[in-house]
Amino acid sequence: MDKLVIAGREFNSRLMVGTGKFASNQAMVDAMENSGSEIVTVALRRVDIDSPEDSLLSHIDPNRYLLLPNTSGARDAEEAIRLARLARAAGCEPWVKLEVTPDPYYLLPDPVETLKAAEVLVKEGFIVLPYMPADPVLARHLEEAGTATVMPLGAPIGTNRGIRTRDLISIIIEQSGVPVVVDAGLGAPSHAAEAMEMGADAVLVNTALADTPDPAAMGRAFKKGVEAGREAYLAGLGPQRDKAEASSPLTGFLRD
Amino acid sequence: MDKLVIAGREFNSRLMVGTGKFASNQAMVDAMENSGSEIVTVALRRVDIDSPEDSLLSHIDPNRYLLLPNTSGARDAEEAIRLARLARAAGCEPWVKLEVTPDPYYLLPDPVETLKAAEVLVKEGFIVLPYMPADPVLARHLEEAGTATVMPLGAPIGTNRGIRTRDLISIIIEQSGVPVVVDAGLGAPSHAAEAMEMGADAVLVNTALADTPDPAAMGRAFKKGVEAGREAYLAGLGPQRDKAEASSPLTGFLRD
Amino acid sequence: MDKLVIAGREFNSRLMVGTGKFASNQAMVDAMENSGSEIVTVALRRVDIDSPEDSLLSHIDPNRYLLLPNTSGARDAEEAIRLARLARAAGCEPWVKLEVTPDPYYLLPDPVETLKAAEVLVKEGFIVLPYMPADPVLARHLEEAGTATVMPLGAPIGTNRGIRTRDLISIIIEQSGVPVVVDAGLGAPSHAAEAMEMGADAVLVNTALADTPDPAAMGRAFKKGVEAGREAYLAGLGPQRDKAEASSPLTGFLRD
Amino acid sequence: MDKLVIAGREFNSRLMVGTGKFASNQAMVDAMENSGSEIVTVALRRVDIDSPEDSLLSHIDPNRYLLLPNTSGARDAEEAIRLARLARAAGCEPWVKLEVTPDPYYLLPDPVETLKAAEVLVKEGFIVLPYMPADPVLARHLEEAGTATVMPLGAPIGTNRGIRTRDLISIIIEQSGVPVVVDAGLGAPSHAAEAMEMGADAVLVNTALADTPDPAAMGRAFKKGVEAGREAYLAGLGPQRDKAEASSPLTGFLRD
Repeated sequence: MDKLVIAGREFNSRLMVGTGKFASNQAMVDAMENSGSEIVTVALRRVDIDSPEDSLLSHIDPNRYLLLPNTSGARDAEEAIRLARLARAAGCEPWVKLEVTPDPYYLLPDPVETLKAAEVLVKEGFIVLPYMPADPVLARHLEEAGTATVMPLGAPIGTNRGIRTRDLISIIIEQSGVPVVVDAGLGAPSHAAEAMEMGADAVLVNTALADTPDPAAMGRAFKKGVEAGREAYLAGLGPQRDKAEASSPLTGFLRD
Repeated sequence: MDKLVIAGREFNSRLMVGTGKFASNQAMVDAMENSGSEIVTVALRRVDIDSPEDSLLSHIDPNRYLLLPNTSGARDAEEAIRLARLARAAGCEPWVKLEVTPDPYYLLPDPVETLKAAEVLVKEGFIVLPYMPADPVLARHLEEAGTATVMPLGAPIGTNRGIRTRDLISIIIEQSGVPVVVDAGLGAPSHAAEAMEMGADAVLVNTALADTPDPAAMGRAFKKGVEAGREAYLAGLGPQRDKAEASSPLTGFLRD
Repeated sequence: MDKLVIAGREFNSRLMVGTGKFASNQAMVDAMENSGSEIVTVALRRVDIDSPEDSLLSHIDPNRYLLLPNTSGARDAEEAIRLARLARAAGCEPWVKLEVTPDPYYLLPDPVETLKAAEVLVKEGFIVLPYMPADPVLARHLEEAGTATVMPLGAPIGTNRGIRTRDLISIIIEQSGVPVVVDAGLGAPSHAAEAMEMGADAVLVNTALADTPDPAAMGRAFKKGVEAGREAYLAGLGPQRDKAEASSPLTGFLRD
Repeated sequence: MDKLVIAGREFNSRLMVGTGKFASNQAMVDAMENSGSEIVTVALRRVDIDSPEDSLLSHIDPNRYLLLPNTSGARDAEEAIRLARLARAAGCEPWVKLEVTPDPYYLLPDPVETLKAAEVLVKEGFIVLPYMPADPVLARHLEEAGTATVMPLGAPIGTNRGIRTRDLISIIIEQSGVPVVVDAGLGAPSHAAEAMEMGADAVLVNTALADTPDPAAMGRAFKKGVEAGREAYLAGLGPQRDKAEASSPLTGFLRD
């Protein structure tokens, strides 16, 4: 599979994984390993920066994964910026998954505060990967602000509903000059494959890996789903048609 | 991945492929090999039984693939039965993919004639895999008649539209005592993955492999799509939800 | 609205209603009246033929509605035929809604037994309106057997899920020489409107009218939904497009 | 039907119509009249404010319709604000449909500039009805800024694709304290009915009325579609189910 390039850095995997909600750290590590992922996002709040030896971080090999701190829980730009700065001060790389989600029920991203935070963080030298609504105009603004990717949602986070914003994500993919990462709502490998077939550059998955009796197997399944979708996209999918096209010729000895 | 068992015979792959419409025999062979398929269906009419050395058959290694003759082009039970008998007389194994499609525009299967032909062929000792509408009651009748599988259509053949009969295929899967193979209409690996996630036992794909600039790559992509879907099904997919479930805990030091 | 013609008889309404599951006879009558329906289907088993004065029939004005007995509950052709004959013997008109549903969980129609019963009943002079799977080839067979309509299901009965068999119903509409009545699964006026916009000739609704706190209002709502869909179909709907078409001209004094 | 109240003003109709792209002024007037609409939106640029007697405005009876000027063509907040002020200066009422659409291909609304313009215009005393992405957090911001409604898009304008943002519009409806008007993309009465059944307060339609051979009939059809959806919403729709619920009792004399 071709490489994914974000902010000049190359990745062999197009599947990013989140670390929330796993039943155990071992389940999380198993899912991560089998997923083939090279980018792992971690809620800054969950990490105990002062005693890292006890934290989730101690389970993630920094030589193997790019640790992508996220600003989960931030309700406005100011909180998100503060979280990102804390992470860098604690020695993290200057990459940040920007999440600004004022609503506690659906955890939907705030377009205005997200753009505001992105503008500040980019100027401060962060490599910003913003979680965002499936909004093509906002995607343009974020790209112009200098974000490294755009990360439109497929469906509200944790719903496992798949790509419920397909028409708009298609437009984002068509227009974007930075990688498009479909984030949130992908609940099955078929959803991830669909995103890749549409031309998305990558996907991010968390709930679907944590919310299964067998995270290790699900990690492997998503790896294949993402690769299947990417390879099909590169090969070139045939068009959808209204009428049948016979796979077999219709004339033959049968009626000779 | 767990094995697929049809009529007592075990298969490692859950992807069947058709051989129609490829640009060249080499393209077909490449797609087949990369797909990992072990069951390959061939239109009887296309095979020149009298001079097999020139035919498509000479390109398919019988030690590697179960050659599944199909009755494509048959317009009623009588024609289908005649084709199946010809195949056996020519030395084929007694497996037959039963297709009875009187309509030349959409090539949709005939429920009544398909059942009639299945009853006759099963009595004659054939192992019958019938292409059929996504009709749960008909699936029951076919199973009672002794068919080895049921093969409901996802969408009209060659349309690449995916699973457009989802509610009914779900019921077939729930009720069937024989393997359910989703056949026709699957145009992308995500479609194949979706079928497997629903609990289908296998899928059959042809147009999607033939109708791409790179059949070899598409064969590989479908292999991964099918495996992804099966592995996710076995692992256990999380439920779809209406509300968000945060991947990250909502309280934390941010607001301490 | 143009008239619906079935078996030479004209109707002003394109909405048929069922009489099952209403909380009271009054609720049923209110829904029927507001729906504008002229065809009302009644389960033969529910009607006490011997003491009609006590039955549901006494609530339905035969001068206003065509009473369409249905064979609900029949598990095979023989039972359906027997029910239809009983109805005629009791003085009903020779119209029958043919339902053969062997499965007690989803009440899906049996394609083979339905066709068999239709052939017998047509020969005996019945005007047969068969409930059927959304199966275009079966629709052709029923039409050739002489049925007055075909009645493909939108979704399993009572599910309120709308038209989940859209691709196949479209083909039936395209190919049918008799009126196509979408039956079962229509749970909202938008579903009924969609069927009519696709070119269906009529719809049949029951659960959606019975399964609401206000059947009278729902009857009126469905009447409007059906008329909206029919009128839009006759007017001619615009095509779906991928790109925007501005409703307003893009040049103007704003940038002069 | 219950009244729609926007900014304290009551309307009997829940269908707003646009005036772009009609083949003739007569076609436009016919569609408007049959639609029952009481709110008509007009692109400010299209109206020749200096010679109103020649303009589209002369065809619209101000005693019958609330003329709602829109800022179509504005590419940022500044342009939109300027257009709104011009309209008021020319004697229009202080209502404005706010549209800020920087992208010429899909005419999608700009979330940031729309919010900025709304804040300014509300402070200047305008009654602001903003066209917006189907973004629940933005809807909250607009409502807090004092807009009279929110108008999320169903699909890109002019595409006739229906409600392709259903999950997000549902959340907006659930959370909004001001009327929700689904705008753009509604191409058929069934789409309008669906929006109303979801609980939207109103819809706005333009392309679907202009883009048909018979705008007068289509206006009538949309009127019925909107009323059907609203009445069904008020009556209370039954839930979608997975299993069948028989409309007719399953026991009876048939098997006695």
